[in-house]
Amino acid sequence: MQNLQKEADLARDYLEKIATLAEKKFDEHLPPETDIPCNLHKAMRYSVFAGGKRLRPGLACAAFELFGGKGDSIWYATSALEFLHTFSLIHDDLPCIDNDDLRRGKPTAHKQFGEATAVMSGDALCVLAFELIAKTGNPQAMESLAHKLGTYGMIGGEMTDIDSEGKDVSLEVVDYIHYHKTAALIEASLVIGAQLAGASESDIQKVEAYGRSIGLAFQIVDDILDIVSTTEELGKDAGSDIASGKATYPALVGLDNSRKKAQELYEESLKQLEGLHGDTSVLKAIAAFIITRVK
Amino acid sequence: MQNLQKEADLARDYLEKIATLAEKKFDEHLPPETDIPCNLHKAMRYSVFAGGKRLRPGLACAAFELFGGKGDSIWYATSALEFLHTFSLIHDDLPCIDNDDLRRGKPTAHKQFGEATAVMSGDALCVLAFELIAKTGNPQAMESLAHKLGTYGMIGGEMTDIDSEGKDVSLEVVDYIHYHKTAALIEASLVIGAQLAGASESDIQKVEAYGRSIGLAFQIVDDILDIVSTTEELGKDAGSDIASGKATYPALVGLDNSRKKAQELYEESLKQLEGLHGDTSVLKAIAAFIITRVK
Repeated sequence: MQNLQKEADLARDYLEKIATLAEKKFDEHLPPETDIPCNLHKAMRYSVFAGGKRLRPGLACAAFELFGGKGDSIWYATSALEFLHTFSLIHDDLPCIDNDDLRRGKPTAHKQFGEATAVMSGDALCVLAFELIAKTGNPQAMESLAHKLGTYGMIGGEMTDIDSEGKDVSLEVVDYIHYHKTAALIEASLVIGAQLAGASESDIQKVEAYGRSIGLAFQIVDDILDIVSTTEELGKDAGSDIASGKATYPALVGLDNSRKKAQELYEESLKQLEGLHGDTSVLKAIAAFIITRVK
Repeated sequence: MQNLQKEADLARDYLEKIATLAEKKFDEHLPPETDIPCNLHKAMRYSVFAGGKRLRPGLACAAFELFGGKGDSIWYATSALEFLHTFSLIHDDLPCIDNDDLRRGKPTAHKQFGEATAVMSGDALCVLAFELIAKTGNPQAMESLAHKLGTYGMIGGEMTDIDSEGKDVSLEVVDYIHYHKTAALIEASLVIGAQLAGASESDIQKVEAYGRSIGLAFQIVDDILDIVSTTEELGKDAGSDIASGKATYPALVGLDNSRKKAQELYEESLKQLEGLHGDTSVLKAIAAFIITRVK
């Protein structure tokens, strides 16, 4: 466990380093608030700069570096990935979906700017993300990103999550939701980083499988923290999953078994990296960070 | 005027021919309703197949043919353009935006499937559109499509339209709204058709300028019809613009001057096509169709 903590600290340092660089690019890639429609651009910046670990940009950079990627194209991808993540959060928080008032310790977009602007700012971040990924000149990366995001990926998981609220669902359905709603964009981050570095198909599949394992682990830990943390610690409404009857691992198998499952997924993720040449220490450290994080 | 009607009939035949082919591709490109999440796929198909002139696919094909385009890549673009148009309609109709109950004579998506599924089906159509345009293997087409759609294009126009409701706005603002909300995606249709055919930059700019003129004409005629037509003729809530205090040409300059402006834009659009080699008769006919249509 002490070793895990050391690994997690290493990952935290790496993610903070990438976050600083990536956020400079977010600022370059987002339209200025002085451009019309000013309020929409303000709302886009508000949500993107509300904070966050910038995990997806970190994973994309780690995969890009692992496979010896060169050049600046990766920064289009890191902005695209974070903007798409933000787009999904803004729409998830809407009154007609999760109806959350708090996100990262701040009022959610619809609370701050109204519902219409929130919907539009999510749409605009999604479209801008695809404009940026197009600038990489890599149609393969564009296609895999869109596919991981669509109804066979993130949006499919969100929709099933919404449809499952308040229902008794099996662990299979919970796995489907988490693998799609959460893991898909994490997989995409690794796949795109690898694609932009020119990795081989079999190497891309290895980091994709790693992403699938840590993606599910990430969601399970998130759901554990939703129960054991306070709203203040979390920066979003704690206990909201139980309140809304969301299907989660803790709800179905309890806290202890959920922690065990996260540990298993951590070990599984390390196995996925076996056989890769190059330095996988950052990816291993990020896996440790994911299962040990407390917020 | 009789000549205009002949031209319009020619355009109607062309658009119907393209619509039949394009709709076969929509069906291929949309996920089956039997795939999870079934209800989301059902909602996507409901909105796409609710009808419509398929003007954007028609314009993309006309530009593609004008510049001697070969191959099937254009059909990815026609689906992408129509799915993006549908995405914008679904979100525009939401209770928090225009709150429309009828679209093309049918209940709007949120009336039929609920608000959460409507938001998600719009998001999913947007993402699917970019997956399809990526399949053309043409990053330039994807970038111009995303740019025309974003906050400097369609979404920027939509947001300004929402912000202007019930306010006294100048004709300059109305032009800004129409050029962005309506013309931008029409321009994109022509630009992408031309790009996929390998047209030169100067030729692309000519059809783009043509699209800008007919795009504004299209919106002005739309706003005229909103006043002079019944809900039954229109298939959507007639008079809804006045009811919601929307900024339109008829509202600002009256019906007669609005008709004059549409005629001027028609003539302007024909001028934009001058100097193009190849057969521009279809584009000229579509311009005539746009200013003579009665629904």
